[in-house]
Amino acid sequence: MRNAQQYIESLRDGREVYIHGERIEDITAHPALRKAIDHGAIDYELDKQTELRDLFVTRSQSTGSEIRRYFELPKSAEDLLKRQELIETATRNAGSVVIFMKEIGTDILNAFKMICYEMDKKYGTDYSARVARYREYLEENDLSMAGAVTDAKGDRRLRPSEQEMPYYYLKVVERRSDGIVVRGCKLHTTSAPITNELLVLPTRAMAESDKDYCIAFGIPVNTKGVKIISRPERGDLGVFDYPLSSRHTTLEAMTIFEDVFVPKERIFMDGEWDFAGPLANCFATWHRFTGISYKYPFAEMIIGAAALASDYNGVPKAAHIQDRLTDLVIYAQSIKTFGQAAARECVISENGVAYPNPLLCNIGKYLFAANYHTSMKALQEVAGGLPATGPTEADCRNPATGKLIERYLGGRKGADAISRLKVMKLVRDMGGTEGAGEWWVGTLHGEGSLQAQRFSITREFNVKKCVDYVKALLEVE
Amino acid sequence: MRNAQQYIESLRDGREVYIHGERIEDITAHPALRKAIDHGAIDYELDKQTELRDLFVTRSQSTGSEIRRYFELPKSAEDLLKRQELIETATRNAGSVVIFMKEIGTDILNAFKMICYEMDKKYGTDYSARVARYREYLEENDLSMAGAVTDAKGDRRLRPSEQEMPYYYLKVVERRSDGIVVRGCKLHTTSAPITNELLVLPTRAMAESDKDYCIAFGIPVNTKGVKIISRPERGDLGVFDYPLSSRHTTLEAMTIFEDVFVPKERIFMDGEWDFAGPLANCFATWHRFTGISYKYPFAEMIIGAAALASDYNGVPKAAHIQDRLTDLVIYAQSIKTFGQAAARECVISENGVAYPNPLLCNIGKYLFAANYHTSMKALQEVAGGLPATGPTEADCRNPATGKLIERYLGGRKGADAISRLKVMKLVRDMGGTEGAGEWWVGTLHGEGSLQAQRFSITREFNVKKCVDYVKALLEVE
Amino acid sequence: MRNAQQYIESLRDGREVYIHGERIEDITAHPALRKAIDHGAIDYELDKQTELRDLFVTRSQSTGSEIRRYFELPKSAEDLLKRQELIETATRNAGSVVIFMKEIGTDILNAFKMICYEMDKKYGTDYSARVARYREYLEENDLSMAGAVTDAKGDRRLRPSEQEMPYYYLKVVERRSDGIVVRGCKLHTTSAPITNELLVLPTRAMAESDKDYCIAFGIPVNTKGVKIISRPERGDLGVFDYPLSSRHTTLEAMTIFEDVFVPKERIFMDGEWDFAGPLANCFATWHRFTGISYKYPFAEMIIGAAALASDYNGVPKAAHIQDRLTDLVIYAQSIKTFGQAAARECVISENGVAYPNPLLCNIGKYLFAANYHTSMKALQEVAGGLPATGPTEADCRNPATGKLIERYLGGRKGADAISRLKVMKLVRDMGGTEGAGEWWVGTLHGEGSLQAQRFSITREFNVKKCVDYVKALLEVE
Amino acid sequence: MRNAQQYIESLRDGREVYIHGERIEDITAHPALRKAIDHGAIDYELDKQTELRDLFVTRSQSTGSEIRRYFELPKSAEDLLKRQELIETATRNAGSVVIFMKEIGTDILNAFKMICYEMDKKYGTDYSARVARYREYLEENDLSMAGAVTDAKGDRRLRPSEQEMPYYYLKVVERRSDGIVVRGCKLHTTSAPITNELLVLPTRAMAESDKDYCIAFGIPVNTKGVKIISRPERGDLGVFDYPLSSRHTTLEAMTIFEDVFVPKERIFMDGEWDFAGPLANCFATWHRFTGISYKYPFAEMIIGAAALASDYNGVPKAAHIQDRLTDLVIYAQSIKTFGQAAARECVISENGVAYPNPLLCNIGKYLFAANYHTSMKALQEVAGGLPATGPTEADCRNPATGKLIERYLGGRKGADAISRLKVMKLVRDMGGTEGAGEWWVGTLHGEGSLQAQRFSITREFNVKKCVDYVKALLEVE
Repeated sequence: MRNAQQYIESLRDGREVYIHGERIEDITAHPALRKAIDHGAIDYELDKQTELRDLFVTRSQSTGSEIRRYFELPKSAEDLLKRQELIETATRNAGSVVIFMKEIGTDILNAFKMICYEMDKKYGTDYSARVARYREYLEENDLSMAGAVTDAKGDRRLRPSEQEMPYYYLKVVERRSDGIVVRGCKLHTTSAPITNELLVLPTRAMAESDKDYCIAFGIPVNTKGVKIISRPERGDLGVFDYPLSSRHTTLEAMTIFEDVFVPKERIFMDGEWDFAGPLANCFATWHRFTGISYKYPFAEMIIGAAALASDYNGVPKAAHIQDRLTDLVIYAQSIKTFGQAAARECVISENGVAYPNPLLCNIGKYLFAANYHTSMKALQEVAGGLPATGPTEADCRNPATGKLIERYLGGRKGADAISRLKVMKLVRDMGGTEGAGEWWVGTLHGEGSLQAQRFSITREFNVKKCVDYVKALLEVE
Repeated sequence: MRNAQQYIESLRDGREVYIHGERIEDITAHPALRKAIDHGAIDYELDKQTELRDLFVTRSQSTGSEIRRYFELPKSAEDLLKRQELIETATRNAGSVVIFMKEIGTDILNAFKMICYEMDKKYGTDYSARVARYREYLEENDLSMAGAVTDAKGDRRLRPSEQEMPYYYLKVVERRSDGIVVRGCKLHTTSAPITNELLVLPTRAMAESDKDYCIAFGIPVNTKGVKIISRPERGDLGVFDYPLSSRHTTLEAMTIFEDVFVPKERIFMDGEWDFAGPLANCFATWHRFTGISYKYPFAEMIIGAAALASDYNGVPKAAHIQDRLTDLVIYAQSIKTFGQAAARECVISENGVAYPNPLLCNIGKYLFAANYHTSMKALQEVAGGLPATGPTEADCRNPATGKLIERYLGGRKGADAISRLKVMKLVRDMGGTEGAGEWWVGTLHGEGSLQAQRFSITREFNVKKCVDYVKALLEVE
Repeated sequence: MRNAQQYIESLRDGREVYIHGERIEDITAHPALRKAIDHGAIDYELDKQTELRDLFVTRSQSTGSEIRRYFELPKSAEDLLKRQELIETATRNAGSVVIFMKEIGTDILNAFKMICYEMDKKYGTDYSARVARYREYLEENDLSMAGAVTDAKGDRRLRPSEQEMPYYYLKVVERRSDGIVVRGCKLHTTSAPITNELLVLPTRAMAESDKDYCIAFGIPVNTKGVKIISRPERGDLGVFDYPLSSRHTTLEAMTIFEDVFVPKERIFMDGEWDFAGPLANCFATWHRFTGISYKYPFAEMIIGAAALASDYNGVPKAAHIQDRLTDLVIYAQSIKTFGQAAARECVISENGVAYPNPLLCNIGKYLFAANYHTSMKALQEVAGGLPATGPTEADCRNPATGKLIERYLGGRKGADAISRLKVMKLVRDMGGTEGAGEWWVGTLHGEGSLQAQRFSITREFNVKKCVDYVKALLEVE
Repeated sequence: MRNAQQYIESLRDGREVYIHGERIEDITAHPALRKAIDHGAIDYELDKQTELRDLFVTRSQSTGSEIRRYFELPKSAEDLLKRQELIETATRNAGSVVIFMKEIGTDILNAFKMICYEMDKKYGTDYSARVARYREYLEENDLSMAGAVTDAKGDRRLRPSEQEMPYYYLKVVERRSDGIVVRGCKLHTTSAPITNELLVLPTRAMAESDKDYCIAFGIPVNTKGVKIISRPERGDLGVFDYPLSSRHTTLEAMTIFEDVFVPKERIFMDGEWDFAGPLANCFATWHRFTGISYKYPFAEMIIGAAALASDYNGVPKAAHIQDRLTDLVIYAQSIKTFGQAAARECVISENGVAYPNPLLCNIGKYLFAANYHTSMKALQEVAGGLPATGPTEADCRNPATGKLIERYLGGRKGADAISRLKVMKLVRDMGGTEGAGEWWVGTLHGEGSLQAQRFSITREFNVKKCVDYVKALLEVE
């Protein structure tokens, strides 16, 4: 397994990455990208901690060699609980900001495992074997992976083939004996600028007329024709003023496929339109399970920040503060409890994969996304105005102002001004910086929109059983 | 194990029960009380159904004879899940209205088991042995039990010994060699008019000055001096117009202890003031676990009624209807998931009892109580105005009006007027009758107020762990 | 102007009214109907109170004779505020239960005034003159009026002419030189069993193919062929146990038109399909304005009951109690403030009618309906369990139990048991009796469903202005 | 009246302002401060627009010369409505970001006017005359003003005189014949770095032992000993990527008083401890009225952005999008309606000031603060993920990526990529940048915390009237 340094070096591979309007030749040398890379690199060092080793490392089910546990295909509830603990622990060790070196990639691999089996069964294709080889390759080389799922979509009312511009969804433009050529663009490709491989799949159910849009594959990020525009990110933030976003960030990107060639053995769907929906859905469940897992530490951090801020302010027992804290506890625990339930009530697929319970995954993800704004409001309410108006580290260091800040910004006895300011800066960074901007939106839309989860929830619940009960009770029908 | 008839006959025991201002000599002959008794009697017949027998019957851990599973002392998560399934199933077979023949009593017995062990350890008392004998007696005679917990309280700001009137909390007024004499009153004593035994315990934490109020015991309902005033209940409701409350109801009562003698061997706490709070709390957790278990079928019934009503109305797919349905599914599933989690993450006590996880119990109970009104609103919104304004069974039977009702109250093609009216009457009975009145309030206050759960939730969650994380992140303190 | 006795006598007119399956020959002699009639009769006596006279009485704009102010056609914001005060005051004098002798009827007359003017202008009809004569007749005879608006609807996805059964919406089945014959049924016809006149109009927008369903008219309740089935109502409730519903109730009914003849001069729309929607909408606004006006006293009563109950319980200052009270104040005041704003920002129609602001009416009505369940939950939370489990008046009067009740149900010093029980019974009657059942549903669905208001709100607000602002800011389009 | 240039020049006055740890000699030359100054300067030019002149300019009530309408002392509901329109219009012309050159200052002057009258009456002081002269001076010189209200507070449970550090609240440290010397610090002093005058008053009710903390006065910002630390703000943002925060911002600051001398004629309270609470409260009402006025345009901007984004995305009519829009309309209109009601139902003080209705002000302010996070969530939900992940202006201008962005980020037919990105950037800037960070917190805490408003609401509402109604209904007490 690689270490941080090896991971970082692997990114100097000629990839075409843009940020703030500039093509960056060596992304490891660009301060903003480097910050994200260093955040990603945390994952490559956690297995080196003795007490985490057992959690982070397992053995390959095919080769027997040591691999990261992310790659472990869950076959039981226990495996899923382990995967959850893994993602939760990694995140907690990275400032409660999810790392995304392996999480999405393995979510996709797990979905491929399940759906390729179904495709092969129906169409006699050999996608399963291809996926297995690819998985082994990724495991052995300990590669990091990004997922490319969400298409540009154009007019959202229209199907891919109905759009005015034919490439609003990624499309096969040429089929050759040794592979295919694709054109289009994927949005919100988390970690794409700083991972090794890109895993691509359809974003929605398709009709037969959309066949050419039904493609899934995996390629190296530095493949010719892949152009990545990173979302803006700053590289010049200090730890005092930005305790999270100066150190911990995930990048999103717009990833363009300019007639990119995909070799045959890396194609995992090509035209099986009736499986586009199932694949998208299956991935969504896996990814929502991941979402629940990494969001819990953040929810705990909200509680910790709220409790500490109100303690420093001298009013930890005020009724309205306690009220907010209770709401936050319910928020955090709902994520955790639905996450664990999704693992425990997993569904074992025909080919032996333990699939997180889709109903419980969707509710868990929905609850954390739907109540995030209210929870952050609770934190901001509890902390007071200083997160917005507090002076900076530089003001504290300036001899003309530092003493005054220390004198006036103390809290309850024993709560010195600098400690208190640090908490206030954390609250600011969680809700009021550009880093926070990513989280407000990412929490809502990452792993699918609220409405997507709502549809899934109603579909997955056994409403008919409830109706039948009422019918029997009333003796109708 | 007794059958329904035996249970019913056992209630002709001279007990002093009042309803609507009247002393009822034979409560089995009073239409309103009889309705509640018949509802209770359901529980005495469910074990006779082959497919339910394994769930409802187990063997005594002491005598080896067949007993109802309610009496099984949970020793593992599996036992708790079984208990949950038991209560859920019994309730579902009783119109989703909880039966309360054994649930509360065994909640109390379980709490006694845990706390008497602690008392004996600290004070060298022999309460545990007394409780064990009492439990065996109850098991073997298959008795039904009510719980008497909530005192009258008077001025809620004041402790028991501070009240103007000294008996606002149940008090020992005489101590004799063979037992004690108590005076006072317990409110909201669910099922007291129609069960065999009364189990009594303190309602709150006490101070040393409240010692004489720290009493727990069990006595037959027909003990001299016990006077029970049932809440009002009607006995003349028809099934069509009141599909639930004509058949299914639990009674609450005001139970007065006019210098009631309690023999020594039935006393399980007397003056151990420092255990009043722990006992009240321990019972609360057990009872909230029961609450979660019986509330789930009702939540399912809400979903069934909402889905069927909107189907009959012809608009099952309208976006706002679907939206309400999704909210209801999240409501129901949250109850279920927290209930199961409370079992799975139980705490094993020193003396081997599997205690439902208090944090998860409290959140589960809180979620069903806090969101009940909104959920019923969703049902009423979906059903439309007919639950309030629809004609009665008698109107349907009247030849002058019946045909007109049948003509005009049909819904979508295939939904005849009578079936549709039946659903509307169910919706009415769930939210708009006197039966519903009990549920609106009972859901809020049964098993403790919302605020009681909120306090428990914050206390049980590990807030300190979250604060420590933030401190480490910020390097403060 | 008539008095209560004259109103009551006028109801012995041979009308065909059914309740609980029975045809009632003299409705003034039936206990349940009589209760509703006595409630209605309150309105006929309020003008006799000196301090209310100026508010309740005005002079006819045509004849100059004294008439009830309900009939005053609002021509200014002040008139609308007066109308609001009138309805609010009448309701407050009737236990906060709206009376509905004149409110709905004049809502409809006002809508006729506005829309008939438009119809006459477009089609050269003379509806306005007919309406004016009818209004004068109603004013002079001080008649009470019911509105018949909501059709049976059958399958709600289908238009009137698309339904399987052709009379799911009220339909003209014959056109004669002297009038028309109609067949069908109207639901939720508030007060129909106990008022003098029935005012009828379409419930929704129609297409040209629905022409025969586009009818509006006014006829006496005792017209041949009109059959009224009242919703169930009890006539045997005591004031102590049912402080509201023993005295104050509005009736709803199913009103069937079995080939009813309507004379020409009483027809106010017949086939003008393009005005069905505008008329339904215009009435909806008037009626929602009425709704806001009568709901405010009820909201105040919730506050009063909550504050008094928590005072008696001894915990008026507990933080969570105060929290609920604050929410209730915001609830009540939002109704009031939007109601007044709807009056103040009225729209003056071409023919001089001051029309309550539709946006503000809809928001006001929406807020009271959407937040009613939460508000009642607050009340029930604050009051505790006694509303569900408290003993009855008869129990208090029984010497065997009365003293015990008095001893044990006292609250804080000075709060005697009987007073406290009275408040608890009020809380019960507001949320947990059959009367309450009407209010839970009526608040949601009366004056239109939540969704109807939501659509109106978005339609009436100037979204375009906001979009234009953003476009200018961004320099787009 | 001054123009923008004059205002800007007036800021080169030797004031002691720090930002990012640096003392800034000429604040008009510092890019970040200059941005805020230019935002402030907008106010100095709006009166130059013909169509706005009548709204922005009036005549002095004392001298008769032209003054800005901000200085107009409201004497009627109409004056208050005008003040509201003034603040709303100014804000709308400044990107919906409140300007705060005069708003807070005149809020304070109005509060001084009311409370000094009361102080003079009780204590025979001459504060009213001093305030009148100061007001005239400010009017005539068209000065901009900041308010300094919130003290540092230290331990929030403790009163000023109980704090460990004696200057956690601003304190008089010396009394001289010609004035006083004060020491302490005020937080959240909006606009202090860039206005001419500082108006100072107590932040809370005080006890007699806190006398030395009961001070109010007005002094120039460049007074010796006044040290201002501005909150961090960036000066290098582009309009495309930051359509609001690149141009529109208000500054907050920490303002320290290092033994600052205040001349006698500028002291408006000194030791009248029983008026500290009334003054703080009175100002709070005025300022909340201002808050409502400037928040409305922002709420409209949320609606506009949401509607435009969903239009560009091609799904303006999706049910869940419409649902969010309806909620936003209710949000915006509640602010507006309570704002207008607060003006219309003003209270005329003994000395003739039209005081915005405190109950309605508090509810209006509460509704906008309490529902802001949910409203922003609606906007972010509607807009989708691009606000977080969209490329920058520089990416659009880069020939290698610009064309690709234009190709792939188009929306529905007619919605070009650049326009769509602009809306997405606006959504980002409203919720996900450092500017947004100020608004999240400022909306919650500006003009007082949620809890402060909740207390005021319950206090100002006539709960007793509601209780009396219920008592009369029940015949109790």
